[in-house]
Amino acid sequence: DFMHALDEVHPAFGVSEEELATVVQNGIIHYSSSIGNILNDGQLYVEQVRNSTRTPLVSVLLHGPPGSGKTALAATIAMKSNFPFIKLVSPEDMVGFSEAQKIAHMNTVFNDSYKSPLSIVVIDQIERLFDYVPIGPRFSNNVLQALLVLLGKRPPKGRRLLILATTSNRPILTDMDAIATFDAQIHVPSIAKLRHVDLVLRQVGLFDDEQAHERAMELLHQAQLNESGKLLIGIKRLLAVAEMAKQDPNPAEKFATTLVNSL
Amino acid sequence: DFMHALDEVHPAFGVSEEELATVVQNGIIHYSSSIGNILNDGQLYVEQVRNSTRTPLVSVLLHGPPGSGKTALAATIAMKSNFPFIKLVSPEDMVGFSEAQKIAHMNTVFNDSYKSPLSIVVIDQIERLFDYVPIGPRFSNNVLQALLVLLGKRPPKGRRLLILATTSNRPILTDMDAIATFDAQIHVPSIAKLRHVDLVLRQVGLFDDEQAHERAMELLHQAQLNESGKLLIGIKRLLAVAEMAKQDPNPAEKFATTLVNSL
Amino acid sequence: DFMHALDEVHPAFGVSEEELATVVQNGIIHYSSSIGNILNDGQLYVEQVRNSTRTPLVSVLLHGPPGSGKTALAATIAMKSNFPFIKLVSPEDMVGFSEAQKIAHMNTVFNDSYKSPLSIVVIDQIERLFDYVPIGPRFSNNVLQALLVLLGKRPPKGRRLLILATTSNRPILTDMDAIATFDAQIHVPSIAKLRHVDLVLRQVGLFDDEQAHERAMELLHQAQLNESGKLLIGIKRLLAVAEMAKQDPNPAEKFATTLVNSL
Amino acid sequence: DFMHALDEVHPAFGVSEEELATVVQNGIIHYSSSIGNILNDGQLYVEQVRNSTRTPLVSVLLHGPPGSGKTALAATIAMKSNFPFIKLVSPEDMVGFSEAQKIAHMNTVFNDSYKSPLSIVVIDQIERLFDYVPIGPRFSNNVLQALLVLLGKRPPKGRRLLILATTSNRPILTDMDAIATFDAQIHVPSIAKLRHVDLVLRQVGLFDDEQAHERAMELLHQAQLNESGKLLIGIKRLLAVAEMAKQDPNPAEKFATTLVNSL
Amino acid sequence: DFMHALDEVHPAFGVSEEELATVVQNGIIHYSSSIGNILNDGQLYVEQVRNSTRTPLVSVLLHGPPGSGKTALAATIAMKSNFPFIKLVSPEDMVGFSEAQKIAHMNTVFNDSYKSPLSIVVIDQIERLFDYVPIGPRFSNNVLQALLVLLGKRPPKGRRLLILATTSNRPILTDMDAIATFDAQIHVPSIAKLRHVDLVLRQVGLFDDEQAHERAMELLHQAQLNESGKLLIGIKRLLAVAEMAKQDPNPAEKFATTLVNSL
Amino acid sequence: DFMHALDEVHPAFGVSEEELATVVQNGIIHYSSSIGNILNDGQLYVEQVRNSTRTPLVSVLLHGPPGSGKTALAATIAMKSNFPFIKLVSPEDMVGFSEAQKIAHMNTVFNDSYKSPLSIVVIDQIERLFDYVPIGPRFSNNVLQALLVLLGKRPPKGRRLLILATTSNRPILTDMDAIATFDAQIHVPSIAKLRHVDLVLRQVGLFDDEQAHERAMELLHQAQLNESGKLLIGIKRLLAVAEMAKQDPNPAEKFATTLVNSL
Ligand SMILES: Nc1ncnc2c1ncn2[C@@H]1O[C@H](COP(=O)(O)OP(=O)(O)OP(=O)(O)O)[C@@H](O)[C@H]1O
Ligand SMILES: Nc1ncnc2c1ncn2[C@@H]1O[C@H](COP(=O)(O)OP(=O)(O)OP(=O)(O)O)[C@@H](O)[C@H]1O
Ligand SMILES: Nc1ncnc2c1ncn2[C@@H]1O[C@H](COP(=O)(O)OP(=O)(O)OP(=O)(O)O)[C@@H](O)[C@H]1O
Ligand SMILES: Nc1ncnc2c1ncn2[C@@H]1O[C@H](COP(=O)(O)OP(=O)(O)OP(=O)(O)O)[C@@H](O)[C@H]1O
Ligand SMILES: Nc1ncnc2c1ncn2[C@@H]1O[C@H](COP(=O)(O)OP(=O)(O)OP(=O)(O)O)[C@@H](O)[C@H]1O
Ligand SMILES: Nc1ncnc2c1ncn2[C@@H]1O[C@H](COP(=O)(O)OP(=O)(O)OP(=O)(O)O)[C@@H](O)[C@H]1O
Ligand SMILES: [Mg+2]
Ligand SMILES: [Mg+2]
Ligand SMILES: [Mg+2]
Ligand SMILES: [Mg+2]
Ligand SMILES: [Mg+2]
Ligand SMILES: [Mg+2]
Repeated sequence: DFMHALDEVHPAFGVSEEELATVVQNGIIHYSSSIGNILNDGQLYVEQVRNSTRTPLVSVLLHGPPGSGKTALAATIAMKSNFPFIKLVSPEDMVGFSEAQKIAHMNTVFNDSYKSPLSIVVIDQIERLFDYVPIGPRFSNNVLQALLVLLGKRPPKGRRLLILATTSNRPILTDMDAIATFDAQIHVPSIAKLRHVDLVLRQVGLFDDEQAHERAMELLHQAQLNESGKLLIGIKRLLAVAEMAKQDPNPAEKFATTLVNSL
Repeated sequence: DFMHALDEVHPAFGVSEEELATVVQNGIIHYSSSIGNILNDGQLYVEQVRNSTRTPLVSVLLHGPPGSGKTALAATIAMKSNFPFIKLVSPEDMVGFSEAQKIAHMNTVFNDSYKSPLSIVVIDQIERLFDYVPIGPRFSNNVLQALLVLLGKRPPKGRRLLILATTSNRPILTDMDAIATFDAQIHVPSIAKLRHVDLVLRQVGLFDDEQAHERAMELLHQAQLNESGKLLIGIKRLLAVAEMAKQDPNPAEKFATTLVNSL
Repeated sequence: DFMHALDEVHPAFGVSEEELATVVQNGIIHYSSSIGNILNDGQLYVEQVRNSTRTPLVSVLLHGPPGSGKTALAATIAMKSNFPFIKLVSPEDMVGFSEAQKIAHMNTVFNDSYKSPLSIVVIDQIERLFDYVPIGPRFSNNVLQALLVLLGKRPPKGRRLLILATTSNRPILTDMDAIATFDAQIHVPSIAKLRHVDLVLRQVGLFDDEQAHERAMELLHQAQLNESGKLLIGIKRLLAVAEMAKQDPNPAEKFATTLVNSL
Repeated sequence: DFMHALDEVHPAFGVSEEELATVVQNGIIHYSSSIGNILNDGQLYVEQVRNSTRTPLVSVLLHGPPGSGKTALAATIAMKSNFPFIKLVSPEDMVGFSEAQKIAHMNTVFNDSYKSPLSIVVIDQIERLFDYVPIGPRFSNNVLQALLVLLGKRPPKGRRLLILATTSNRPILTDMDAIATFDAQIHVPSIAKLRHVDLVLRQVGLFDDEQAHERAMELLHQAQLNESGKLLIGIKRLLAVAEMAKQDPNPAEKFATTLVNSL
Repeated sequence: DFMHALDEVHPAFGVSEEELATVVQNGIIHYSSSIGNILNDGQLYVEQVRNSTRTPLVSVLLHGPPGSGKTALAATIAMKSNFPFIKLVSPEDMVGFSEAQKIAHMNTVFNDSYKSPLSIVVIDQIERLFDYVPIGPRFSNNVLQALLVLLGKRPPKGRRLLILATTSNRPILTDMDAIATFDAQIHVPSIAKLRHVDLVLRQVGLFDDEQAHERAMELLHQAQLNESGKLLIGIKRLLAVAEMAKQDPNPAEKFATTLVNSL
Repeated sequence: DFMHALDEVHPAFGVSEEELATVVQNGIIHYSSSIGNILNDGQLYVEQVRNSTRTPLVSVLLHGPPGSGKTALAATIAMKSNFPFIKLVSPEDMVGFSEAQKIAHMNTVFNDSYKSPLSIVVIDQIERLFDYVPIGPRFSNNVLQALLVLLGKRPPKGRRLLILATTSNRPILTDMDAIATFDAQIHVPSIAKLRHVDLVLRQVGLFDDEQAHERAMELLHQAQLNESGKLLIGIKRLLAVAEMAKQDPNPAEKFATTLVNSL
C-alpha cells in the first residue's frame, strides 16, 4: 500500500532550499503508484550524474497537464539528492525582465552550477520562460536559443550537472525541435480515478467525520466520473476545490458539485 | 423580491477606496437574481482567501459583454471584503505607458499586496492591459506574460491574495491558453428581459409619472423585444440611453425608439 | 425649404476657435434635410453632457465617405455648444510625431479637457491618427489602444466631456472591435441627387448667369446621373470641381464634363 | 503639326531651379499630341491655385510606366508657373535617411512652401519615398502616413499650394487607399507607335544621313512592331538605346536590333 | 577489421587545443568503416588547402542526425592537420550575445585565421549560431548573412583556410540557398546495425563479464531491431544509455529496455 | 580559335586595382566564344559612358549561376576601361555592418565616383548586399531601397558613371520590381559542354601527361555528360574540383569521379 502519508523531504544545503520547500507547500501525497515511480526515476538520473564520468551532463524534462504536480516533484527530487548546489530558475523571479536580463540570469545560474562538483538546476515552466503564447505563435527566440544551448552545454572538466525542466506544453517543444536536447523525459499525469481522489481527500482531512467523506464520494460515483472517463484533474486544482468547499456550511455537497462542474 | 434598491457599499480602508467607489458611480441595481448570485460567489472566494492556509492565492475572472457591469461588480465585491489592501489596476491609469512601465506598475501593485496579510487586486479590462486588437491579432506579449506569471505567483509565507480580473473577451484568453491560470470564473450577463428593463427604469426614475413609464414599456412590448430574443443590452448602455432620452421633450418615445434602434 | 443659405456659426471662447473656423472655410450649405438632422443630433449629445449627472462622458462617431463634410460638421456642432473648452485633435498637427509623442499629445488634450466643467474634444480622421493602411493591414496599435482607453475614460468628478470623432473608414473600426467604445454614431452621406448639386452650385455662385447654370444642369441630366445611381460625390470634391471649372472659358461644359468623368 | 522642336522652359526664380532643369536634361520632345495635353492640364491646375480662394490646396498625381517622362513633365509644368516657390522632393536627396529624417525633410519643404503666397512642391517617385517593394509587400508606413497627411493639409490662410506627385506604381497607391487624397490625376503614356519613334530619332539627330534613318525605320517596320502591339517603350529608354547605337560603327542596325530585343 | 581501439589524436599547437580535445571526450570509436572514410575525406581537404595555390579557401559541411558524432569528428580532423591555427566557433561560447556580438566574434576568429599561413576554423552547430527555430521559422538573418559571406570570403594573398562546419539540419540550409556556399559535404550517419552497437559496448566496457554482454545483445536481437529497421541511434546517445544502465543493479536488462524504449 | 590563353588585363590607376586583380586570381580562360562576347558587350557600355552626353549614367546587371565567373568578368571589364575611378562594392568588406553603415559605405563610394569625370562602380553579389534569404523571404529593405535609388541617380553635370552589378539570383530582383532600374543585362552561363571542360583542363595544366588528360576526358564521355544534358558547372567549381583531384595519387580518376558525383 502506497498510502504512507507525506513523503519526507530533507533539503540539501544549497542556496535555494527555502524556495524549493515553498513550492512543495502541500507535501507530496502518494495517492498512486505513479508518484513513487516518478521519484525513483528522478533518483536514477541523480545517481547517473553522481557516478558516471562519461556523462557529466544529464537533462530531464518533466511534462504533464497544468497543476499535475510537476514543480513539486522536480523540487522534491532535487532536494533528496543532497547535491551541494541546487537552484530553481523560475519565471516568477523574472517578471519584467528584458530578454537580455533573463538570459543573463539563467547564464549566471548555470555558471554558478559549474563551480560545484555536483549540481542540480530546476528550470520551471520552461514555456513561460521564453514567453510562449499560441497566438502567432509568439515567443522569445533569444531566450529559447539560450536555453537550448545551456541544456546541451557540457560543464567544465570535473563538474557534473543534472537539469530538471518542467513544462505543461510538450507539443510546442516538439514543434520547436527542442525535445532532442533532453536526455530523458518523465511524464506527470493528472488524477483520473475516484480511488485516488478518495486517498487525497483523506490525506488532507477535508471532512471532520467519515459520513461526510462517504457522502461526497457517493455523489462523485453517482456522477459516473469513473465510467465516463471525464475525471481528469491536477492535484493542485483538486486541493483548491477542497479548500473552497471547506468554506461552505455543506462541504460534501459543495465539493462534489464544484468538482463535477469544473470538469 | 430582489428589488431592494441600491446595494450598500462600505469601502475598506485600502488605498484605492475613492477610485473603487467611482467605478460604481451609479450603484448596483438588483434588477435580477443573477446580480445577487454574482455577489455571493464573490464573497465565497473572499472567505477562501481569508481562511484557508493551503490556497494563499485565488484568482477569479469576471467575464461578460461590454457594459454588463463587470467593473462595478468586481469593485463592489472587493470593497465588501474589508481587506486592508485593495487596489485597482486599470488601463486608464496607464495611457502612454511603455510595455516596461506597464509591467513595472503591475509588479509594484502585486509586490505592495504581498506586504498585507489579506489583499485584493482588481485587474480591470485585462485584454486592454495587453493592448489586444483582433486585427493581426496584435497584443503586447510582454505584458501578457507578466500578467500570466503574476496571476499564478504565490504570495510569500503568511500573505494571502485574491485577484479579481475582468474581461469582455474571454475567447481570446482561451486562445491564448490563459484561462487555466484562473482558479475560477464568474459570468456577468447582459439584460435580456423587458422585466429587468422595467426594474432599472423605475430604479433610476427616468419618468416623472407612472403613465410615461407605462407608455415606454408598452412601446417596447409592441416592438416584440422579449419574443424576438433581440433584447440584449448592458446595464451601462441602458443607463446611457435613459439619460439621453431625458433630454428629449418626449422621453418615453425617445427612450423606446433609441433602445429599439440600438439593438 | 432648407435652402436658408450658410449656417451661422458663433465659435465658443475655447482655445481652438480659429483652427475650428478654418476647417469650415466654405461654411455649411444646407443642400439637403440630412444636414439639419446631423446638426440636431449633434446638439442632442451636447445637451446630454451639459445636463446629465449619470453620463459625464459621451462619445460620438461621425462617419462617411471621404470629403462628405465630416470635419466641417463636427467643428460646427462643437462651436455651437459654447462649451468653455473645445479642442481639435488632428493628424495634421502631428506630422513626424513618434507614437509616444502622439499619445502624449492626445493625453494632454484630454487631461486639459478634464480641467473644464464642460468640454468637447474633436478627434479628426481617427484612422489616420493610428496610421492605418489597408496593406497588411498596418497601424499603430499603441496609438489605437491609447485612443480606445481615452474614448472610454470617465472624466473626474464634476467634469463632463463630449467626444466627437470622425472617420472615413468605419469598417476597419468594426474589425478592430473599436465601435463598442462609442456611445453613438452619426452618418454623414455623400451627395447623390442632382437637385442637391443644383442647390450647391447656386449657393457658391459658380455661374454668372442663369443660362449657364441651366446648361450645366441640363448636361448633367443628359448624362443620366440621377437615374443610373452613379452620382455620388462629397461636398468637398464638388466644390473643388466647381472651382476648377471656373478657370475655364467655358465653365458650364467644363464643370459637367469633369464631374461626369470623375464619377 | 506638333513637331515644333523642344519646348522652351523658363524656370521660375524659386530655389530648386537648377535641380529642376537637370531632370529635363534632354528637353521635352513633342512626339505626340498627348505631350501637349499633359502640359495644358498641368497649366489648368496651376491657374486654379493662382485664382481660386476656395481651394487653396490642389494635389495632382502624374502616373505612368517607368521612363515615360513623368519627372521631366512635372518639372516642366512647375517651371512654367513662375510661382515664387518651387521645390523638388526626391528620394535621390534622401539616400540613407532614417524614416524620421525623411519625414522631417518633407515637413520642412511643406512648411517652407506655406511661407510663400503661391507654391509648387514636386514629389518625385512617391513609392520610392516610402520604400515600397512588392515582396511582402514592405514599405515605410510612417513616411506614407506623413505623405498622406501633407497631401491633404490645407496651407494657412492666404497661402496656396499645388502638389505634383509622380509614380510608376499607381495600383499600389490604390491598394493603400491613397488615391482619394489626390484632387486629380494625369496619365503619362509610353511610346507605342513607330511614327512617334521616327519623330524622336529625327529630333535627337541619331543618324548623320537620311538613308541611315530610313534603313533603321524600315527594319523596325519589318519587325512588325506596329502591328503586333509589341512596341511600348518609355522616352527615357528610347533615348538610351539611341545613344548606345551611336557607339556602334553600324548605328542603324544596332539601334533596330537592340530596340526589338529589348521589347 | 576496423576495431583498432580509439583513434590516436595529436592536437596541433593552435589556440583551441584544450577545447577541441574536450569535445572528443569519449574518443573516436571505429565501430564501422564509415568512420575511417569520414576521417580520410577530411584529410583530403586538409591537403588541398595545404598544397593548392588556386584554392586558398575550402569550406566543408559535416551534416547528420543529432548526436551522430559530427563535432567530435570535425575536431579530430582539425587536430590531425597540425595546422598552426585551429579555432572552434561554438554557440556555447556565445550565450547571451547580441547579433552584433556574435558577428563580431566570428569576424575576429576569421580575421585571426587570415594571419596564419594555414588555418582551420570549425563552426559548430551552424543552425544554432543563427538561432534557427522551425516555428515561424525564425532565425537571425544578420548572423546567417555574415556566415554566408565569411564562408565564401577568400583569405588574403598567401593565406589558406579550411572551414569545417557542422549541422543537424541540412534541409534548412538548402531552403536558405546556403548549400552552394560550401565546396564539399560529408555525411555523418547514426548507428543502424546491432553489430555496431556490439562493437561500441565492448569498446566502452559496459559489462564486467562476457555473459552479461551476450544477454544484452540477445535481448536486442529478440526485439528485432535489425530486421525492423527501427535501430537508429547516435553514438552520443548510445553512450548515454550505457552510462545510465551502469547505475542499475541489472545493467544488461536496463540497457536493452531503455535502448528499445528510446527508439 | 578562341583558345588564345589568358586574357591580358591592364588594371586602371583607380583605387581598387589590387582588390579587382584579386577576384580574377585565376585569370579569364576563353573556353568558349561566349566569354569574348561578354567582354565585348562590356566594352560597348564603357564606350557609351565615355562618349555620350545624353546618358551620363549606364547601369548593367551581370547575372548567372553561382560560380559562373560573374565577379571575375565584371572586374575584367572594369579594369580594361582605364577609367580614372574604379571601385568594388562587395559584401565581403561589410561583414557586421549595420544597415545604416552599409548604406553609408555605398553612398560614399557613389559620391566619390561623382568626383571623377569617368567612373565605374562594381556592385558585387547584389542580393547578398541587401541580406536576401528565401525563407520569409527576408532582406534589408533599407539597403535595397538605397541601392535602387543609387542605381538610377544621375551623376552631377559633367560626370559619367558606369555601374556593373552582379547577382546569382535575378528572379528575386524581378520579384522586387528592381530589374527596370538597370539599363542593360549580360548573362554569364555555366559550362555545359565537355569540349569546354577539355579546354579548361588543358589551360590549367591539371595533368602532367597527355595520356592522363585523355583518360579523364574518356571517363567523362563514358558518363554521357554531354548527351544527358547533366553537365552544368561553373568555372569556379570546375577549377576547385581539378585542384582537389591534384591531391590524389590518381588525379584522372579522382577528377572524373568527383565531377560526375557533384552534378
Ligand atoms: N503527489 C503529488 N505530486 C505533486 N504535488 C503534490 C502531490 N501531492 C500533493 N501535492 C501538492 O500539489 C501541488 C502541486 O502543485 P505544482 O505547482 O507542483 O503543480 P504544477 O504541475 O507545477 O502546476 P503548474 O502546471 O501550474 O506549474 C503542490 O502544492 C504540492 O505540494
Ligand atoms: N446590477 C448592476 N451591475 C453592475 N453595474 C450596475 C448594476 N446596476 C447599476 N450598475 C451601474 O452600471 C454601470 C456598469 O458599468 P461598468 O463599467 O461596471 O460595466 P463594464 O461591464 O465594466 O463595462 P465595460 O465592458 O465597458 O468595461 C456602473 O455605472 C454601475 O454603477
Ligand atoms: N453641408 C455641408 N456639410 C459639410 N461641409 C460643407 C457643407 N457645405 C459646405 N461644406 C464645405 O465642404 C467642405 C467639407 O470638407 P470636410 O473637410 O469637412 O470634409 P471631410 O468629410 O472631413 O473630408 P475628409 O474625408 O477628407 O476628411 C468644407 O470646406 C465645408 O466648409
Ligand atoms: N515628351 C517628353 N516627355 C518627357 N520627357 C521627355 C520628353 N521628350 C524628351 N524627354 C526626356 O526624356 C527623359 C524622361 O525621363 P524622366 O526621368 O522624366 O522619366 P520618368 O518617367 O520620370 O522615369 P522614371 O520612371 O525612371 O522616374 C528626360 O531626359 C527628358 O528630358
Ligand atoms: N566514431 C565516433 N564518431 C564520433 N564520436 C564518437 C565516435 N566514437 C565515440 N564518439 C564519442 O561520441 C560523442 C559524439 O558526440 P558529438 O557531440 O560529437 O555528437 P554531435 O553529432 O556533434 O552531437 P550534436 O548533434 O548534439 O551536436 C563524443 O563524446 C565522442 O567522443
Ligand atoms: N572565362 C572565365 N570567366 C570567369 N572566370 C574565369 C574564367 N576563366 C577562369 N576564371 C576564374 O574562375 C573564377 C570565377 O570566379 P568568380 O568569383 O568570378 O565567379 P562568380 O560567378 O562571381 O561566383 P559567385 O557566384 O560565387 O559570386 C575566378 O577565379 C576566375 O579567375
Ligand atoms: Mg509548475
Ligand atoms: Mg469595465
Ligand atoms: Mg475630414
Ligand atoms: Mg521619374
Ligand atoms: Mg555537435
Ligand atoms: Mg561573385
